[in-house]
Amino acid sequence: MSGTFVGIDVGGTNVKIGLFDTELKLICKTSVTTDADMGPKVVIDKMAKTVEELVAKAGLTLRDIIAVGIGTPGPAKYSEGIIIKSTNMPKFKNVPICRMLNEKLGAPIIFDNDANVACWGEYAVGAGKGVKDIVFFTLGTGIGGGIVSNGELVHGCDENGAELGHTIIYPDGRLCNCGQKGCVEAYASADSTARRATEAIQGGAKSSLKKVLDQKGKITSKDVYQHLASGDKLAKEITDGTAKALAITCINMLHATEPKRIVFGGGMIAAGDILLNGIKRFFDEHIWTLKKEATEICFATLGEDAGIIGAAALAQYTKQQGKLK
Amino acid sequence: MSGTFVGIDVGGTNVKIGLFDTELKLICKTSVTTDADMGPKVVIDKMAKTVEELVAKAGLTLRDIIAVGIGTPGPAKYSEGIIIKSTNMPKFKNVPICRMLNEKLGAPIIFDNDANVACWGEYAVGAGKGVKDIVFFTLGTGIGGGIVSNGELVHGCDENGAELGHTIIYPDGRLCNCGQKGCVEAYASADSTARRATEAIQGGAKSSLKKVLDQKGKITSKDVYQHLASGDKLAKEITDGTAKALAITCINMLHATEPKRIVFGGGMIAAGDILLNGIKRFFDEHIWTLKKEATEICFATLGEDAGIIGAAALAQYTKQQGKLK
Repeated sequence: MSGTFVGIDVGGTNVKIGLFDTELKLICKTSVTTDADMGPKVVIDKMAKTVEELVAKAGLTLRDIIAVGIGTPGPAKYSEGIIIKSTNMPKFKNVPICRMLNEKLGAPIIFDNDANVACWGEYAVGAGKGVKDIVFFTLGTGIGGGIVSNGELVHGCDENGAELGHTIIYPDGRLCNCGQKGCVEAYASADSTARRATEAIQGGAKSSLKKVLDQKGKITSKDVYQHLASGDKLAKEITDGTAKALAITCINMLHATEPKRIVFGGGMIAAGDILLNGIKRFFDEHIWTLKKEATEICFATLGEDAGIIGAAALAQYTKQQGKLK
Repeated sequence: MSGTFVGIDVGGTNVKIGLFDTELKLICKTSVTTDADMGPKVVIDKMAKTVEELVAKAGLTLRDIIAVGIGTPGPAKYSEGIIIKSTNMPKFKNVPICRMLNEKLGAPIIFDNDANVACWGEYAVGAGKGVKDIVFFTLGTGIGGGIVSNGELVHGCDENGAELGHTIIYPDGRLCNCGQKGCVEAYASADSTARRATEAIQGGAKSSLKKVLDQKGKITSKDVYQHLASGDKLAKEITDGTAKALAITCINMLHATEPKRIVFGGGMIAAGDILLNGIKRFFDEHIWTLKKEATEICFATLGEDAGIIGAAALAQYTKQQGKLK
């Protein structure tokens, strides 16, 4: 089969677009500013124009596009191709993005949640390759999630499943942005990790991070992991809290959809083995003794391209299933 | 299509067997003692003989059986048709139950976990009928679970998924039989509800349940809910703990596979509305405010027949999918 799959990853700041061959090998990619303030028509026109330019650059035409995959933040009616609203793109309300893109590009459009798309990328060609069941977490400002069960993405009854950052690990615990108390996101996202360190220092805890807070006015999760590496006691306490929260969530998902691999992605995994080993240690300490579990905990491997690869992979899978419209 | 589906529900004490027509209408049913002490061959021979008798009673022959569904407690290799071991049937080790039954009955055998089978029964013809996504809990000695996602049972990578009683709601909390701390089962099963009441009274709490404990030497969850109904303060505290633990677990499953309905079954639901309304109240108190959820929480409707109906329904579904071997 010849032709190309297009993957589009829509963020509040940038839109990333990649062209892939039928084996999902990257042909070329680009990134343009989203310009969300200009409203949906301008944004989608620019997206389509950028796809056209990429296609031309690869010596192809729009007719060579087999299908386009696109991932955006929710909430959306993915199966109907409509963005309901978007925190990062306030002018996007009830936007029929699939129809608008299809009118410009001619090709079928496959649309899903950005975390689902990245999850599918890791499943298809990344850290989850070769197994049928994975659970995926993105550790960033918040915690996003995705579930592949028996080779299929779990969407849920209202297409808003796998909001794994909002599973509760400490009932009546820290207040989350979502309105719940005790969500794993309120403890273990990059933002929450930094915030817990900041609060501890403001509460009088001794730490080498205090100097960072005084000088820069804020602490990032990167700072916390750097000071952990250099032996700071508070950084150890805070990052242990992060690792334990994630480990409990892993155990809960193991007892739910029983993934073979649990994959962590997102900016915070730059902290490296010190983060991964912490999660594994708390997992081993808290998991049942009833039977030995074979679930592996690992980091994502696709990095920042997970979104475009996942979107293209989802388009490819939809084609393979004979479900392109 | 004419013919019959057989549903078998294997418990440690009794084996229930039902004969159903192709529309899953019950033709006749029976229950025999398991006699697990006699070992697998005797037990399985008796099962087959009982099926033969039921079939004859219905004026049919073994050749009228389209398929047999059977549910047993785990752990087992369901897809391979083998019971690995069983707490309630210690002589069952690596028993190829599907092959043994098939040799006696001739018909294809569909084999799954007892909680999955009951979940499938509720999904197909009970409280979950008409939707594609449900989560199911059985509240008994322990807490069993089942998940149907987009119309399919979730089995997991090692066929031991949906052990929802062992999702953790209070890290480092009460010790569970499984070796973990803080499982929902350690708070909200019938046994744990009774045990928490017993411990509170032994710790000096005042309660009308003390008299029951003194007279009978033990308290059951039924006692606790009866004393709740008559206004006992400790019973309120204990059952609030049960309802809250279940509600948090509902929220976590909502954010995982996003069921349209969450169905509670098992002996403890005899407590009635006072239990169901408690779960709903804590659910409403603890769920996010980000969006209104349409998930319904309800009781199972199939009662003690859930196992045989579910097993027959699973056999019917496997036939419909063209996957009978």
